[in-house]
Amino acid sequence: MIIVLEGDATDSEIGAVLKEAGRFGTAPAVSRAGSATVVRLPVSGKGDAGDRLRAMPQVRGVVDGDLPYVLASRDFKREDTLVRVRDVVLGGREVVLMAGPCAVESRDQLFSVAKQVKAAGARILRGGAFKPRTSPYAFQGLGEEGLKLLAEVSRELDLPVVTEVMAPEQVDLVARYADMLQIGSRSVQNFPLLKAVGRTRKPVLLKRGMASEIDEFIAAAEYILAEGNDQVVLCERGIRTFDSRTRFTFDVVAIPLLKRLTHLPVVADPSHATGMAALVPQAALAATAAGADGLLIESHPDPREALSDGRQAVTPEELARLAPQIRAVAAAVGRA
Amino acid sequence: MIIVLEGDATDSEIGAVLKEAGRFGTAPAVSRAGSATVVRLPVSGKGDAGDRLRAMPQVRGVVDGDLPYVLASRDFKREDTLVRVRDVVLGGREVVLMAGPCAVESRDQLFSVAKQVKAAGARILRGGAFKPRTSPYAFQGLGEEGLKLLAEVSRELDLPVVTEVMAPEQVDLVARYADMLQIGSRSVQNFPLLKAVGRTRKPVLLKRGMASEIDEFIAAAEYILAEGNDQVVLCERGIRTFDSRTRFTFDVVAIPLLKRLTHLPVVADPSHATGMAALVPQAALAATAAGADGLLIESHPDPREALSDGRQAVTPEELARLAPQIRAVAAAVGRA
Amino acid sequence: MIIVLEGDATDSEIGAVLKEAGRFGTAPAVSRAGSATVVRLPVSGKGDAGDRLRAMPQVRGVVDGDLPYVLASRDFKREDTLVRVRDVVLGGREVVLMAGPCAVESRDQLFSVAKQVKAAGARILRGGAFKPRTSPYAFQGLGEEGLKLLAEVSRELDLPVVTEVMAPEQVDLVARYADMLQIGSRSVQNFPLLKAVGRTRKPVLLKRGMASEIDEFIAAAEYILAEGNDQVVLCERGIRTFDSRTRFTFDVVAIPLLKRLTHLPVVADPSHATGMAALVPQAALAATAAGADGLLIESHPDPREALSDGRQAVTPEELARLAPQIRAVAAAVGRA
Amino acid sequence: MIIVLEGDATDSEIGAVLKEAGRFGTAPAVSRAGSATVVRLPVSGKGDAGDRLRAMPQVRGVVDGDLPYVLASRDFKREDTLVRVRDVVLGGREVVLMAGPCAVESRDQLFSVAKQVKAAGARILRGGAFKPRTSPYAFQGLGEEGLKLLAEVSRELDLPVVTEVMAPEQVDLVARYADMLQIGSRSVQNFPLLKAVGRTRKPVLLKRGMASEIDEFIAAAEYILAEGNDQVVLCERGIRTFDSRTRFTFDVVAIPLLKRLTHLPVVADPSHATGMAALVPQAALAATAAGADGLLIESHPDPREALSDGRQAVTPEELARLAPQIRAVAAAVGRA
Repeated sequence: MIIVLEGDATDSEIGAVLKEAGRFGTAPAVSRAGSATVVRLPVSGKGDAGDRLRAMPQVRGVVDGDLPYVLASRDFKREDTLVRVRDVVLGGREVVLMAGPCAVESRDQLFSVAKQVKAAGARILRGGAFKPRTSPYAFQGLGEEGLKLLAEVSRELDLPVVTEVMAPEQVDLVARYADMLQIGSRSVQNFPLLKAVGRTRKPVLLKRGMASEIDEFIAAAEYILAEGNDQVVLCERGIRTFDSRTRFTFDVVAIPLLKRLTHLPVVADPSHATGMAALVPQAALAATAAGADGLLIESHPDPREALSDGRQAVTPEELARLAPQIRAVAAAVGRA
Repeated sequence: MIIVLEGDATDSEIGAVLKEAGRFGTAPAVSRAGSATVVRLPVSGKGDAGDRLRAMPQVRGVVDGDLPYVLASRDFKREDTLVRVRDVVLGGREVVLMAGPCAVESRDQLFSVAKQVKAAGARILRGGAFKPRTSPYAFQGLGEEGLKLLAEVSRELDLPVVTEVMAPEQVDLVARYADMLQIGSRSVQNFPLLKAVGRTRKPVLLKRGMASEIDEFIAAAEYILAEGNDQVVLCERGIRTFDSRTRFTFDVVAIPLLKRLTHLPVVADPSHATGMAALVPQAALAATAAGADGLLIESHPDPREALSDGRQAVTPEELARLAPQIRAVAAAVGRA
Repeated sequence: MIIVLEGDATDSEIGAVLKEAGRFGTAPAVSRAGSATVVRLPVSGKGDAGDRLRAMPQVRGVVDGDLPYVLASRDFKREDTLVRVRDVVLGGREVVLMAGPCAVESRDQLFSVAKQVKAAGARILRGGAFKPRTSPYAFQGLGEEGLKLLAEVSRELDLPVVTEVMAPEQVDLVARYADMLQIGSRSVQNFPLLKAVGRTRKPVLLKRGMASEIDEFIAAAEYILAEGNDQVVLCERGIRTFDSRTRFTFDVVAIPLLKRLTHLPVVADPSHATGMAALVPQAALAATAAGADGLLIESHPDPREALSDGRQAVTPEELARLAPQIRAVAAAVGRA
Repeated sequence: MIIVLEGDATDSEIGAVLKEAGRFGTAPAVSRAGSATVVRLPVSGKGDAGDRLRAMPQVRGVVDGDLPYVLASRDFKREDTLVRVRDVVLGGREVVLMAGPCAVESRDQLFSVAKQVKAAGARILRGGAFKPRTSPYAFQGLGEEGLKLLAEVSRELDLPVVTEVMAPEQVDLVARYADMLQIGSRSVQNFPLLKAVGRTRKPVLLKRGMASEIDEFIAAAEYILAEGNDQVVLCERGIRTFDSRTRFTFDVVAIPLLKRLTHLPVVADPSHATGMAALVPQAALAATAAGADGLLIESHPDPREALSDGRQAVTPEELARLAPQIRAVAAAVGRA
């Protein structure tokens, strides 16, 4: 059972709730979460007990296991959360284009792609320095060297950078170089990692797992919010289904659904979702029409030579052709 | 192995192919399919044997089990097929709105909805007279009475009608009243039914099965085309996945993928795909942005009172608000 | 709402229920289903209304949309239903082996396989005369000629035969030759076909659809039972999932689950479930250990030459080696 | 491309391979993996280049991206790997029973369950001290206190202990108390964690992810093997599918499939796979019949009071009834 109290609850009001909660025989855990006080009890609050608590002064809500999240919920916070990555705002009117190579391969590659995607309209540069790869023998990324290149290019081009962090002990390192921390699909339920990025004050791009139920996905975000970091952007990137023509099945409806259930910005990654460059444009346009707050698109000057995931990367030229179409669809649905 | 010959192949050219094919020791089956002559052999054509056939005069192609379809393929026919439902054209520039109630319930209900969806911009009226229902105890549709109501309303409002046919022995009956025959998801591999609608010259709306692979779906269309009826429209309507927040997962990327692989028009059914009225608008807009040639939307004046699938029906008022948004997105991607 | 009355309800008791049901303003539909009288109303019976009906004399139960079946349910009938295919009983102590080729190809092939699978312990011969194939160009079965061969071999070897029926208009024909009618996976929700086999008094082997939820599958059986035919055997044959190493994912737990939820016999088809001959033995043993009442196994003397589904057929020799292992596992779980 | 050389390759033989590999223009990475030398190149080895390498002395094999693993493959090592957890051997003739509570809750609970599961025949005690939970507000385990209790009970009852480790920085701590390290489903592609447990010499129980393809799962094991730790046991624990009656779909065929593709022991977790205590026995028996080397079963004296996953735990009494059935099925398939 989770009891959420209003931010202006007095100590004596909180004390009254704790006393009532104490009747369950286990010690309640109290924490602050954003503006609220959260009281957690490892017992069910169904029935009278929960109702009594719900009726107490300053209690905003009692959640009882039906949903695994509170702070991320639209019920908890009505207005949209804006996430700021340097001067770029996600969750506002703009459909933010984030683009770049799957993996940072070299200074030249990165600088050249970054310049081109910026020219095409990208507001945030993406690129992997630590790459989670199915096989231990596949290219694992350039590591800190890749981070340095990202930071350097970011500075030169005045383009904020998002890059993946794979382990709690990498968080400090990556946070030193990146403007936004990406949690990859395979890490969506890496709870120690979620807590670690929650303890930073960096914005986080959280990718849906390939088999995440919607509520599990939001609960993963809740791990970050519960640590006091509400700068979380959710990213739909395709789920695993029986269909084998595309690498994943792009769950475009997850976008409006997530926006109904939470107050967090929601973006889409049409590159991973389809795994085929030829389908990226239509998937990107579909995401925009469905209300995405941004798009994460892989771009590589020579996709066939990419060290990872080349099949799904569009060229910077293709991105430049796609960007105005995205803007046109965004305008058609009342976005910028 | 399937050998497809040009339509103007002479008897002696066909004879030469048959002679070569006869070397496999099984009798080749010959048929006409559209403009082509199709020679089928229940053996593999891999290797030299296939190559020899491929090189013969007037042989357009040899397909060998890798794909289960020929006539439906974009390789076979480059240009888009236009499907005509009375004066409405699917597969052209227009994004065609098809709307109506899930089931025909009464003359009043149908007439009232039809008038409203027409006013909202619908070009084709949908409505079920024969309803495939999970339970034998659920409302099974009004049957022929429903067909008569559809035909009557269609005439009065000058609105073509699409409605489902569930069994080969119903085809003649339904074809008498309807302008377009719908094959439902559960019938996508009802091969006797596909052959039966293939023998009519009515346009067919073929819905993807909830577990159809893309190639299986196209192969189902091939059953219709192989009977000489090329007036087939494919409909993406959601697939079954692990995710349980929506009734199905709307596979929006199937739309551009089907349009690459086939020359047939492709429409989307956001109502069944989501199962939630609140998500139908975004799914419809996403489908439009992804290149759908039309949308099939359930509309009911009082969704809570609908005899089937009420949760997913939008009201005619909601449809009227949605239609201009669809047109705006269509325009943004170069459609009408 | 479905109201099921005891079989010995008198006309006046039924009349009382109908009168009460009539208060909902829609005409109740009355039918006999096996020993019971079933009253159907296209309205909800939640709340007081349902409770009043439930409390009336001779009312056995009221079901309200939560489950789409009644007669097939274990709640409705506690004891196991025995299904008799000539002298073979499914649902009793014996784990019944059903084997044969995927498709009937010729008299010699069928006779030879049938003799061998009988020697290996098969009690029922399986073989397809009408074959549902993904592609219209694949071998579609020998049709009535195949049925005649099945009947002839059946007579000579005294081995009952199960074979697929694909359309309502084929039911009479197939029922003339076969001892048991098979409804294939693609037909699991072919409701006109289910009704047609329900009107015969032949035993039915109903295969789960590749995307059937458990309750949908049982509801498909309910269509047959509601027509008065309770001789239905359910068959788990693999479901469609993301995993691509095997053709389908064998849902072995569906076996005990179906046996809890229904009173019908449950068998497994390890050949289709795995699609790989090398995995058929372990899948067959797993099914037996999980409580299957029978096994349906494809066997072909030369799988590579089979006209359909060769990859998944075991040779009669392999079947002869497997049969005693099946009996050993059956004995270990208290079966014969 | 991965080139695996025999363990007794001389420096000059390795040098020759490196020279040949150097022709690709990228520096080859050399490492030892178990008894072998592994040369990795981020390029394709298809065609002549790969063939030349394959033909060189001491080259055991060249793998080219088709499969993401080498050392875990049955092609690489024919004979079964035995994994030793103190005196218990996994992968031999015995079907090893591992049982215990989902989470360690208290000394009394653990001691009492452990005594009972040992009496029922369990050879290894399972119990979670660090619990990965969907919600941050759910019980997260007792942490180090739980590990201490596990170690204490293990000592007193002479029962080896397996418990989960969730982050690289926890590995040393958990390894201090546990006999076997469990990697949970959500961590199956937590590559830093896999590398960390690979660097220990503790046996590892690696659970399949809920959406792991078979080859991805084996590749996750490869991360551990590539660090020199070949004491890895694979665990099938259910995959995510559309079916909602059980928590996951138990992929029983994965057991024989994994045993064909790899030389590692394979066990099953029927508790998580089904999520329903009533189905655990049949799933356990099915796994045994399919060739599992062991079973991981949750047991709790009072499942309704369990702090996590109570619905799927069997009581120790149920386990005591199940154990002889498991032994009977094991004997029927030639196991102990």
